[in-house]
Amino acid sequence: MATSSTKQNRGNFFEDFEVGQTLVHATPRTVTEADGALYIALYGSRFAVQSAETFARNIGFSTRPLDDLLVFHVVFGKTVPDISLNAVANLGYAECVFQRPVFSGDTLSVTSEVIGLKQNSNGKTGVVYIRTTGRNQSDAIVLSFVRWVMVRKADPAHPAPETVLPELASGMKITEAPPHLVALDVSSWSDAFSGSPYRWADYEVGEHIDHVDGTTIEEAEHQIATRLYQNTAKVHFNQHTEGAGRFGRRLIYGGHIISIARALSFNGLSNAFHLLALNAGQHVAPCFAGDTIYAWSEVLDRVTFSNTEAVGALRLRTVAVKDQAATLFPHTDESGKYVAGVVLDLDYWVAMPR
Amino acid sequence: MATSSTKQNRGNFFEDFEVGQTLVHATPRTVTEADGALYIALYGSRFAVQSAETFARNIGFSTRPLDDLLVFHVVFGKTVPDISLNAVANLGYAECVFQRPVFSGDTLSVTSEVIGLKQNSNGKTGVVYIRTTGRNQSDAIVLSFVRWVMVRKADPAHPAPETVLPELASGMKITEAPPHLVALDVSSWSDAFSGSPYRWADYEVGEHIDHVDGTTIEEAEHQIATRLYQNTAKVHFNQHTEGAGRFGRRLIYGGHIISIARALSFNGLSNAFHLLALNAGQHVAPCFAGDTIYAWSEVLDRVTFSNTEAVGALRLRTVAVKDQAATLFPHTDESGKYVAGVVLDLDYWVAMPR
Amino acid sequence: MATSSTKQNRGNFFEDFEVGQTLVHATPRTVTEADGALYIALYGSRFAVQSAETFARNIGFSTRPLDDLLVFHVVFGKTVPDISLNAVANLGYAECVFQRPVFSGDTLSVTSEVIGLKQNSNGKTGVVYIRTTGRNQSDAIVLSFVRWVMVRKADPAHPAPETVLPELASGMKITEAPPHLVALDVSSWSDAFSGSPYRWADYEVGEHIDHVDGTTIEEAEHQIATRLYQNTAKVHFNQHTEGAGRFGRRLIYGGHIISIARALSFNGLSNAFHLLALNAGQHVAPCFAGDTIYAWSEVLDRVTFSNTEAVGALRLRTVAVKDQAATLFPHTDESGKYVAGVVLDLDYWVAMPR
Repeated sequence: MATSSTKQNRGNFFEDFEVGQTLVHATPRTVTEADGALYIALYGSRFAVQSAETFARNIGFSTRPLDDLLVFHVVFGKTVPDISLNAVANLGYAECVFQRPVFSGDTLSVTSEVIGLKQNSNGKTGVVYIRTTGRNQSDAIVLSFVRWVMVRKADPAHPAPETVLPELASGMKITEAPPHLVALDVSSWSDAFSGSPYRWADYEVGEHIDHVDGTTIEEAEHQIATRLYQNTAKVHFNQHTEGAGRFGRRLIYGGHIISIARALSFNGLSNAFHLLALNAGQHVAPCFAGDTIYAWSEVLDRVTFSNTEAVGALRLRTVAVKDQAATLFPHTDESGKYVAGVVLDLDYWVAMPR
Repeated sequence: MATSSTKQNRGNFFEDFEVGQTLVHATPRTVTEADGALYIALYGSRFAVQSAETFARNIGFSTRPLDDLLVFHVVFGKTVPDISLNAVANLGYAECVFQRPVFSGDTLSVTSEVIGLKQNSNGKTGVVYIRTTGRNQSDAIVLSFVRWVMVRKADPAHPAPETVLPELASGMKITEAPPHLVALDVSSWSDAFSGSPYRWADYEVGEHIDHVDGTTIEEAEHQIATRLYQNTAKVHFNQHTEGAGRFGRRLIYGGHIISIARALSFNGLSNAFHLLALNAGQHVAPCFAGDTIYAWSEVLDRVTFSNTEAVGALRLRTVAVKDQAATLFPHTDESGKYVAGVVLDLDYWVAMPR
Repeated sequence: MATSSTKQNRGNFFEDFEVGQTLVHATPRTVTEADGALYIALYGSRFAVQSAETFARNIGFSTRPLDDLLVFHVVFGKTVPDISLNAVANLGYAECVFQRPVFSGDTLSVTSEVIGLKQNSNGKTGVVYIRTTGRNQSDAIVLSFVRWVMVRKADPAHPAPETVLPELASGMKITEAPPHLVALDVSSWSDAFSGSPYRWADYEVGEHIDHVDGTTIEEAEHQIATRLYQNTAKVHFNQHTEGAGRFGRRLIYGGHIISIARALSFNGLSNAFHLLALNAGQHVAPCFAGDTIYAWSEVLDRVTFSNTEAVGALRLRTVAVKDQAATLFPHTDESGKYVAGVVLDLDYWVAMPR
């Protein structure tokens, strides 16, 4: 008779989490220009700072940084085996700050802290609030964010923990630029090379931008992307089980849609060269292979920094929709409910040369 | 009421071009060995000079060069947003010269000059002739080529420009090898490692080579490739619009077929380690995911260089066909019309050790 | 009338091989961290030593090694044009030893020696036994293995060669660790970062490990992987011919399944950071796009090394199955026949920190 091992990771259940707990996530990851090339191949990103060594150095970077969302996905991916293997749903993001650029050769390590817990009234699931921090090989924080996830209980009879709800900033105030932006000199920024003459001052609050193009998702593409991030969530990779599941198909990793929307946003926001922060993000509806993603953005706010005049910040809402053009800026109806076709609603700050 | 932005790139229409005009294309691109690895993964290219650092250094390269067609595609891709976003068809290539090798870490910037214009008799479209030049970070030209494209007019009432037709060499004479070839010493060239004992002198004008193998195109593959080149032409990526279009499907980037044909040509032309020039190229018929591409080549000419005895040049016609073997060298019928199945007719010069 | 070339590689037929013959395979290959990133993207591998520069250096590597199976596939791929282009079947592997780690920038060259021949009684095919050796740019052996392949005869009338059957170790004894393992110091090995607290001593002979997860294969993924290895076997790439063939579909490269199974085995064997040797491997049934692969492992043996106490070796059987979970460890029935669904049976040694 075979001895059955119990050495597999079964993931944490709701009752396994407690407020204050720290989780060290497995498999640190050295990211390189190879990940950057794959990122371009997967999304067609065209922002000049991440694409061209010459452009990046010309404005004061020591070398071109890797794409901010590539860093986000790698950091996020590390948390999956410990946080969301038994998740029912990813409910939201907040307070995501891109604190330092990541360069080819950096190694990212990730830890998370449990900052809130609330059992649901059905007694079978609960919401876990997590602050995740990604650090480079010098132990400097490159990225931190909060997310909350609905997680199953293994034993519904397990008593509910005390409810702790973290206070989260719904829209972070941006007042100071991070040091790596203060060091930039955009006096020789080339609008021809960056792809647009429109700088920070040219955008108005309330302006709506249709990003025009659409991109159709293939099964192989989202799997290759999601594995690149070493994200192991089962729903993305296993047609044998998902075929018998709720949707009958593999689910696309939500971050894949964020990256598609960001790449599409180049058409209208070519100079938005860097993500400063994500205020909030919601995956409004699931996406599947074969869906064609379009996107539009609204300028929500526009601020200057106290410590540099080289760049300013725009707060954007970028909305992704599927299988319909974004010409009419589909978002919510009068009752505040998302209209059909909306798949992503993202509220974030970008840096743009002034 | 939303303020609609007009900051998107809508591309140039026929009336936006004028002879002598220079266009600086967006998003310079640093290419690295990561792009080289992806290129191998996408096409299975096996030419030893680009594959092996040892082989390349052994014959006098400072380091292995990136694949010539990878360079071509990246340079071509940059021109799309300015030249062919409103194109009806890519009509042809000429005078494409690979002037310098490109190495991992080089940054490619691209400009184009309008060298010809001719409005079509229907008044709705016109042909634009463009000379495109790719330069490295030292501002040295690595590649230049002419292409002509049929572009829509935004306003059919706009008056026709004066017709200017550039004089183009239909088959460039190759007399001198470029400096990077003159510097090579092929005395220790290994036929075992390069994959074939057949050198320049073994090929005869008129010789037809069936490249035997076929490769089936997948949707994810051509999209990953075309995005790697940051080529944004809508027809390659958007099934939502293309599904309702002329073919009902996404169109494969023509350059993808060129790269497949070149990779297939290894079987019979293993020592053709470098492209010197493309004389002419025609995408005879569109290709789609699911098509299986075969190729054959004819030796059109064979010349020596005045400035080196190490390598010689072969002028080749490589023809790609789909969903049929190339055993019988399908090309044109008696009236000069391409026979069914032909998708590409490429006339080019390669370098081969003597 | 066209002159038909005969310069293509038609591959070797059974009668072209003779015992003692050495084959130098074409296209040496420089492998880099770009191949490593693609390998992660294709399989989602999460072993920390190959993923993180910090982790690898921390235990004594000069820099992180590339994945052992990536090296195997590249070396294997080189042999295809000379050994198995006319193969009917890959029958087995033996005596595969990973002798030295391969690092980014190394160039792999491959030779093979014919060590056995046996014509089949039908007179139309024969079995060729080959010992293949991969070397780095310093001519040091990194990998060697034996495989045997059933190859067609071009001329059935060709007389049979003398039968020579090599003696092959069915399960290699592991007594000494290779030098690169002796140099390691695992005192600061982080179980949190490696993903599991279970070390060598925690595994028992007879223990069965269900690796839980399943991964569905896409056509584009296995083609991209197999071309990355420059493996040109026709059956993987040509739907036009395979569609009319025995299975009606392209066959997945068997090594792709090995890599999927190894990546899945992280869940339960996270600390098995290095392959020492493959004793035997059998592709029990063909795989196709759309198949979902699961895997389980059994601990067959457990040994210490005479020359280091830092790491020990586990002998594992890893079995991959398709379209069924591995919960019940499907393998063979009472008659020793593989049960339906089993696609791979691999017997190998891994190193694990003690």
